[in-house]
Amino acid sequence: MNHQATGEVLSLSIEDAGDGLSPEVFRDLFRNHPAGVAIITADDGSGPVALTASSVSSVSAEPPLLMFSLSDQSSASSVIRESETLVVHLLGVGELPLARLGSTSGVDRFASSTEWTRLPSGEPLFHSAKAWIRARIIHSVTAGTSTIVIVHALESGANGGHEHDRDGRPLVYHNRTWHALSDRSLAE
Amino acid sequence: MNHQATGEVLSLSIEDAGDGLSPEVFRDLFRNHPAGVAIITADDGSGPVALTASSVSSVSAEPPLLMFSLSDQSSASSVIRESETLVVHLLGVGELPLARLGSTSGVDRFASSTEWTRLPSGEPLFHSAKAWIRARIIHSVTAGTSTIVIVHALESGANGGHEHDRDGRPLVYHNRTWHALSDRSLAE
Repeated sequence: MNHQATGEVLSLSIEDAGDGLSPEVFRDLFRNHPAGVAIITADDGSGPVALTASSVSSVSAEPPLLMFSLSDQSSASSVIRESETLVVHLLGVGELPLARLGSTSGVDRFASSTEWTRLPSGEPLFHSAKAWIRARIIHSVTAGTSTIVIVHALESGANGGHEHDRDGRPLVYHNRTWHALSDRSLAE
Repeated sequence: MNHQATGEVLSLSIEDAGDGLSPEVFRDLFRNHPAGVAIITADDGSGPVALTASSVSSVSAEPPLLMFSLSDQSSASSVIRESETLVVHLLGVGELPLARLGSTSGVDRFASSTEWTRLPSGEPLFHSAKAWIRARIIHSVTAGTSTIVIVHALESGANGGHEHDRDGRPLVYHNRTWHALSDRSLAE
């Protein structure tokens, strides 16, 4: 079946849901799958929110689309899901403090007013991210305990970051620790 | 709007599609976003196919769901999209030859009969992958030039891999090169 959809939420149902892997085995498998790190910000009118995500991936370059998933257990998730637009910040190792901030619960992620500003269109923007993308939500899929969000990239920028040379190295999350890619980590 | 869906394909439309980032800028941004590496295999009855994907991400542990995107330009993509079930192999640096095999076009990825077998349920399985997940497609979203596939993890296994000690290190793709995580790449 094919049909068109714009900006709507789809809820998935699963046949034979009892057949699947146990949550413990599943978590163990993906704990060992490395991922790049992003912090996503939005404001649906109720105040700025931010969370760290390791699920951001490009989908299509033309039109420019990306996706990520949000756990329904995160308090920031519902604000992001309800926002029309958001900002995805792609993080280097210089932004490790920002990655930690967005992954620690119970912390005011906007306490330091010098760390962030707002874009002219209103979305919260952290100064230190090496690159950011402002995007509009075009579709969401509720899948198990998470929501997959597909967004259209509208504009982007680079913030320059800090002035020490660690910043250019990409940040990777793996097995609850943080890694930095460099010439020393090359596999070939 | 909410509605239920199982195993169907959704095609997204985009409002103001002309507003987005250029494909060049978009590709530059994501070239610098690192990702774990997987090889996905399937057989829809027309013979085995395999492709390397850097978009595999967990979505939900209970039920166990994961997602990835497939470029419509890949010949293997349409076979995977049409398959009921598939295998996602999560790769370590010891499987770099397998990652290269699945990302090189015009190569017979099943030429070496000693490299792969079939699961009892029929899906192609590469022996060397450090971990694999057999999964059923529950939903697909056509988004731009790609398809986002959401799958339900049914069973998993570990293949032991080769016997040299590089194997345990996770493989990361970044800026058209391959990296290996280890104690030396720790960011803290």
